[in-house]
Amino acid sequence: MAEHAAIVGAGVIGAAWAARFVLHGIDVKISDPSPHAERIMGEVLDNARAAWAGLGLPEPVEGTITFCDSIAGAVTGAMHVQESAPEDPDIKISILEAIAAACPPDTVIASSTSGIKPSVLQPSIVNRERMLVGHPFNPVYLLPLVEVCGGDLTSSEAIETAMATYSSISMKPLHVRVEIDAFIADRLLEAVWREALWLVNDGVATTEEIDDSIRYGFGLRWAQMGLFETYRIAGGEGGMGHFIAQFGPTLSWPYSKLMDTPDLTNELVDTIEQQSDEQSGMHTIRELEGIRDRNLVAFLRALESAEWGAGATLKEQRGRLG
Amino acid sequence: MAEHAAIVGAGVIGAAWAARFVLHGIDVKISDPSPHAERIMGEVLDNARAAWAGLGLPEPVEGTITFCDSIAGAVTGAMHVQESAPEDPDIKISILEAIAAACPPDTVIASSTSGIKPSVLQPSIVNRERMLVGHPFNPVYLLPLVEVCGGDLTSSEAIETAMATYSSISMKPLHVRVEIDAFIADRLLEAVWREALWLVNDGVATTEEIDDSIRYGFGLRWAQMGLFETYRIAGGEGGMGHFIAQFGPTLSWPYSKLMDTPDLTNELVDTIEQQSDEQSGMHTIRELEGIRDRNLVAFLRALESAEWGAGATLKEQRGRLG
Repeated sequence: MAEHAAIVGAGVIGAAWAARFVLHGIDVKISDPSPHAERIMGEVLDNARAAWAGLGLPEPVEGTITFCDSIAGAVTGAMHVQESAPEDPDIKISILEAIAAACPPDTVIASSTSGIKPSVLQPSIVNRERMLVGHPFNPVYLLPLVEVCGGDLTSSEAIETAMATYSSISMKPLHVRVEIDAFIADRLLEAVWREALWLVNDGVATTEEIDDSIRYGFGLRWAQMGLFETYRIAGGEGGMGHFIAQFGPTLSWPYSKLMDTPDLTNELVDTIEQQSDEQSGMHTIRELEGIRDRNLVAFLRALESAEWGAGATLKEQRGRLG
Repeated sequence: MAEHAAIVGAGVIGAAWAARFVLHGIDVKISDPSPHAERIMGEVLDNARAAWAGLGLPEPVEGTITFCDSIAGAVTGAMHVQESAPEDPDIKISILEAIAAACPPDTVIASSTSGIKPSVLQPSIVNRERMLVGHPFNPVYLLPLVEVCGGDLTSSEAIETAMATYSSISMKPLHVRVEIDAFIADRLLEAVWREALWLVNDGVATTEEIDDSIRYGFGLRWAQMGLFETYRIAGGEGGMGHFIAQFGPTLSWPYSKLMDTPDLTNELVDTIEQQSDEQSGMHTIRELEGIRDRNLVAFLRALESAEWGAGATLKEQRGRLG
């Protein structure tokens, strides 16, 4: 069919969206003012193809990629628009207005924002009931999760259409039923990020020690079960009730640093950058991406064998493509 | 040698400590007043043996397990004591006093507490300079991380000895250099737990939706790289500096629920239990343990192939045992 997906803003996130669509046989048209956009797209597509092969999926019949000089050029006739512009409400709103003015009236317009409510973004655009948030996770071509959140003015049809579109490119759409800032996953991430900043700020732990405290321990649990399911098991035969009875009271202890946010002084930012360089400056970002992707591929294949969690999504993908 | 490790308190955590020692050829003596202790030990050891086989490690020459009627019986002559009593300072202090009175004067006494500072636990025990925290992560026989934290009165020799003991049973000891409540990992976990409770309390998301938001997305990243390393990559070619410049300002946005703790009302606890039952009530806790362990084994083997993170610890283990 002649319909295509439009990618507006093609940095690391937008390019990975494009790669996911293309590998599922869907043509994409891209609008991005950066002189680096074509190069980034090529690099991300290389990563995505390597991941696809690593997953052992059938040889893809790839869609085409067309770079357009304008937003209108990319979104005219699109069956889905994914906006991945910088995380600034004013910038996003002006781009969304331009998208809405040029694309078909019932085409879903999804923003990749990780924190801004769709109700903030949608009021001034044409046919605003088809605007919503579709928040993905880096690397978008490998991680299945996308949070779908409508605003006050979003129609239920738009939500359903977006969920179906994301399912068709082998994602796990999670409908965020109540509109809140930062949706679900990023609220959890923000909470951790704040606390981690305090630990660095106060000299308690380095970035590497904090990362190690995650990846040698609870991170390995979370990759398959998340938070509550892990605690259900930790409660032993008593399950969740026993767990909460045992550990719930510690919640009221004065871990006061959890309640506040450190100032991002130049000194703190310098400290983080320096520690991060010491931790992994021996690898380029490109090498780290490769390591990350190969590990993710191995995890997803392991989970597929177990027919569990994100592996179930991969299994569905294989079935649909096979 | 005649020396053994003493396990005081053998619930899910203590029994898994015992399994880790025994599978590394070290005899253990256990003290636990529960009538269920021997049964739990048997079940946990079965799980640990299955995990060991799953990791493809050489057939273990197992140490012996002896149940003792008293704390003194278990700790007399011990080369290391691991206390895993209920998470209550008064209970732990009285048990630690009994341990210290009976075990050799220079034997390290480690508490498995997930949050209580060693300075709170150690003042009243004999030879208190050898007391410290060795905080493990469930399942202890599979996850390598153990946080080692000394109190005001702990000697550096005790820290070094504990680190060496944990390394000898193929763990990744992380020295928590600054003593704080909840150490490092559990401060991060507490932050997430609070926010997750708000999301359930406010009806934003169910326990399953929250778990899915982790295990289909960032959880898969954290299992291998943790928080900062992931963001280093997310910053693209600009690395950490670019990432903080881009997303740092959102920290000051009013995500106010992060700053407070919901009351653990009966209603909230009931809601969590009910949602957790709907999510995974079709599996027994035992089945969930099996699924978790098989997934962890697969992740660790994948990471070992990549010579990365927790896989590096497994590789060392294989080298030491091989």
